[in-house]
Amino acid sequence: MSDARFSKIHLGDLRVPMRRVHLSNGTSVELYDTSGPDNPDITRGLPRLREVWVLERGDVARYGGRQVRPIDDGFKEQQAWARANTEVFPGDGRKPLRATGAPVTQLAYARRGVVTKEMEFVAVREGVSGEFVRKEVAAGRAIIPANVNHPESEPMVIGRNFHVKINANIGNSAVASSISEEVEKMTWATRWGADTVMDLSTGRNIHTTREWIIRNAPVPIGTVPIYQALEKVGGVAADLSWEVYRDTLVEQCEQGVDYMTVHAGVRLAYVPLTARRKTGIVSRGGSIMAAWCLAHHRESFLYKHFEEMCELLASYDVAFSLGDGLRPGSIADANDEAQFAELRTLGELTKIARAHDVQVMIEGPGHVPMHKIKENVDLQREICDDAPFYTLGPLVTDVAPGYDHITSGIGAAMIGWYGTAMLCYVTPKEHLGLPDKDDVKTGVITYKIAAHAADLAKGHPRAQEWDDALSDARFEFRWEDQFNLSLDPVTARSFHDATLPAEPAKTAHFCSMCGPKFCSMKITHDVRKYAQEHGLTDSAAIQVGMAEKAVEFTELGGEVYLRGQNPADPK
Amino acid sequence: MSDARFSKIHLGDLRVPMRRVHLSNGTSVELYDTSGPDNPDITRGLPRLREVWVLERGDVARYGGRQVRPIDDGFKEQQAWARANTEVFPGDGRKPLRATGAPVTQLAYARRGVVTKEMEFVAVREGVSGEFVRKEVAAGRAIIPANVNHPESEPMVIGRNFHVKINANIGNSAVASSISEEVEKMTWATRWGADTVMDLSTGRNIHTTREWIIRNAPVPIGTVPIYQALEKVGGVAADLSWEVYRDTLVEQCEQGVDYMTVHAGVRLAYVPLTARRKTGIVSRGGSIMAAWCLAHHRESFLYKHFEEMCELLASYDVAFSLGDGLRPGSIADANDEAQFAELRTLGELTKIARAHDVQVMIEGPGHVPMHKIKENVDLQREICDDAPFYTLGPLVTDVAPGYDHITSGIGAAMIGWYGTAMLCYVTPKEHLGLPDKDDVKTGVITYKIAAHAADLAKGHPRAQEWDDALSDARFEFRWEDQFNLSLDPVTARSFHDATLPAEPAKTAHFCSMCGPKFCSMKITHDVRKYAQEHGLTDSAAIQVGMAEKAVEFTELGGEVYLRGQNPADPK
Repeated sequence: MSDARFSKIHLGDLRVPMRRVHLSNGTSVELYDTSGPDNPDITRGLPRLREVWVLERGDVARYGGRQVRPIDDGFKEQQAWARANTEVFPGDGRKPLRATGAPVTQLAYARRGVVTKEMEFVAVREGVSGEFVRKEVAAGRAIIPANVNHPESEPMVIGRNFHVKINANIGNSAVASSISEEVEKMTWATRWGADTVMDLSTGRNIHTTREWIIRNAPVPIGTVPIYQALEKVGGVAADLSWEVYRDTLVEQCEQGVDYMTVHAGVRLAYVPLTARRKTGIVSRGGSIMAAWCLAHHRESFLYKHFEEMCELLASYDVAFSLGDGLRPGSIADANDEAQFAELRTLGELTKIARAHDVQVMIEGPGHVPMHKIKENVDLQREICDDAPFYTLGPLVTDVAPGYDHITSGIGAAMIGWYGTAMLCYVTPKEHLGLPDKDDVKTGVITYKIAAHAADLAKGHPRAQEWDDALSDARFEFRWEDQFNLSLDPVTARSFHDATLPAEPAKTAHFCSMCGPKFCSMKITHDVRKYAQEHGLTDSAAIQVGMAEKAVEFTELGGEVYLRGQNPADPK
Repeated sequence: MSDARFSKIHLGDLRVPMRRVHLSNGTSVELYDTSGPDNPDITRGLPRLREVWVLERGDVARYGGRQVRPIDDGFKEQQAWARANTEVFPGDGRKPLRATGAPVTQLAYARRGVVTKEMEFVAVREGVSGEFVRKEVAAGRAIIPANVNHPESEPMVIGRNFHVKINANIGNSAVASSISEEVEKMTWATRWGADTVMDLSTGRNIHTTREWIIRNAPVPIGTVPIYQALEKVGGVAADLSWEVYRDTLVEQCEQGVDYMTVHAGVRLAYVPLTARRKTGIVSRGGSIMAAWCLAHHRESFLYKHFEEMCELLASYDVAFSLGDGLRPGSIADANDEAQFAELRTLGELTKIARAHDVQVMIEGPGHVPMHKIKENVDLQREICDDAPFYTLGPLVTDVAPGYDHITSGIGAAMIGWYGTAMLCYVTPKEHLGLPDKDDVKTGVITYKIAAHAADLAKGHPRAQEWDDALSDARFEFRWEDQFNLSLDPVTARSFHDATLPAEPAKTAHFCSMCGPKFCSMKITHDVRKYAQEHGLTDSAAIQVGMAEKAVEFTELGGEVYLRGQNPADPK
């Protein structure tokens, strides 16, 4: 937002970014900001804000790292890769970091009583103490996704006792889109308020695309490693193996992915539970694992090797996002046996992850009618011992393809209020096609609405301040302040200008809905003036005042005309 | 929807319209339809469907009627009116109908045990019995707005035990728009699903605009008569009087307005209760009445003359929509003393209206954070003895001007689930400007989503059928069926085509999100096939099946590969 009426400020020694909105009455409002450094050079990547914090803890070291191979980008041999992949991120050849001993996770530090720089940073962003953040992380009620190899990211916290967060999904596919488009979508998403971004790329150039994204991401980046693993085996689920998957985990840990969706709860025994569903298995990761389990008739290799995964992730501080591979894909399938069987397994896995000091959050549905939403949160909280919940929507009806940002925004606001910590956005293209830049923005704004509405309903004090500032501006006809305080100033201003384009209209004491002669806000100003003049400014005074007036009224024979005080006079 | 894949059908002797969607598997789905007769000639108006029903009851008669005057269109003298107003609706000079004796309201008939044609008509639309409709109307839990002078409208019912309805507001203002634009917006709104339309015109040509709208409206039309009354007194609230207001009521009753918003609950004593609010009084009708009360220091003339109004409305069967003139205009002001004081008065007025056999519903807020929504419904229900609730949104946050269809769609879905009978839409232009055709459509679709989500959450059986039909189509890759079943087939189809424009893509067994090699729906089909082949189609069988397989698995040394059954094989 490079507008004179905003400024990016940086609070304290840690330089925590906030957006300061300057109001025309001389005051200002500070809003949480996810947009990262202004005007970055994407060929260099963002400044490595966290690098010194990570290094000064003295528990990580650089090492040779895994060699990047053609297959990481979906190519079988070197020459084809070199020919096709002309957009390699320049970089500086820096080697990856890894723990030299004990886990280097925020959870491990929190449990040892250490308030890290990351915790202090999010404390300032959230308006709480560092110690409060530490306690929430130590209890597993919150996570701070912060891979030691993604020092460019500005720390943020995901937990029910903080601002509700939102995630934006981007990613190319076999059908469409390029690396630069995906980087631009990521930047665009954070500009409008995405707290994290998931790179869900499939098809070719996955490794290279992700490198560009991570090096330029001011927010944590999540992935679903099984997507890339599947590309490495030519798209045949049955050919997947723990070895290929583990290799992919190492690759992504070294690149700096901050959290990974792992569908380790899709166990062999649960797969047939989906057979009678209206829409079966709709999670991509879930169906890949189901296909693998059935093809081999074996227990999921993700489930079997979960402890090994924990050890790996603990060395980089990558958080688990335990995937809901059996989430419902339609209203008819919501809250069924398959879904809750998997959730119980996610509860087991949460305990294992925490035993290894790995941070963990839990993914949730999906498609759920309104009356079944709360049960999801209550069960998740109980089964997963308060681990942060991270839900996709949920969509509250299936009948509106093209508007699923709205069908899901309704469910997202509600589930956020009930206690979900992060909401994964859905764009208008859901079920129909890949989102373009406009869709990303629409999805992000819709989900900022849902998250903020949840903050309000949960009684977050900072949330109410924002609404109050905007309502004051609205009531006082401070149009520019109203635009600047809104989630999307560009759209608010353009909608206003469409009806009343002239510049004076933005300082006018009326609006285009009612016209100059007749405005309810104007009349209310006069009511307030009247009440003040008559001392009717609190309930007791009102009672007394009205009683006095009633006497006066009767004395005058019930025909008092006070034309001089006519509040509707259009002067 | 003049598409070959839809057809408008008419059920039974009463010819109740439904939209039949023909599916590619040879079945069809019937959906509630509000769009009215196809290809109407707007200069003639719609066929008078209800005229014979009204006349055959033998309790109304035509009479001379009030003479239309220049001031009805905001002009002071005949010549200026004639010069400016060149678009008078042609009409056929038919005189208005009025009761010859007792009230001719649906409530009066219901109480006498009569199931009217209107009740039978809505019974077919709702899938219930005529007697059920009669009981709900007799109890005051539902209303059927059906002015005897609006025979063009297709009866619909508003009540918590029926489909949740939506209203679209249209109307010109002093600043913008023409008669033809408003008629087009009305038609457009009903095409996309508006169950009623409110004409909120201000400025000039109010009478003429309304005539065009009513004569062409297949849905009930609502108004706020105080708006026109105010125009008749030159926009000066203090100059309003019961006489001017009553004259306007008669004018609108004779034209065929089906329900009228009356802010009779804005009593003098409540006005100062708003003085300490963040955004005072934001209802236009509420602020006009507050201004009048303060200017004269007298009790509201609407409150004082309420019984006289009841007698008038009973003669035409115009329903009250008791306005919430003191509704909150910001999150900060929700559920306050002023709002609930007015609600208690609306409870009193409800009893009076019902004593006169006048149908009544109650308007509600506004701006309300999620955790305060339910209280509104519970209190309204209790105080107003189950009269249908009709709410504007509510908006669940103030910070998103430009997206208030979404901020309010969230609240609307929730309040619908809690029991609100009709939801008044909010367009993206709310707070910023006047809605154009696109905004009307966006508002209507958003509110259809909210209303339908509420129907689902309330367990309406027909609601679930619709979602199931669409989910089946989605799961079976019947793209055209998915489009045709959606709330907005045009948008769904165009979004799909934007990524995969070619015709074969619409029959393809994959979608653009994942590409041809890798599709979760495809994999699920294979899972289902597997489960069927192994007899794993119910829970018991699954348990047995898995146990058997576990034995087999162990016998084979834990390394079973069933490549022949590989469900991920991309063939």
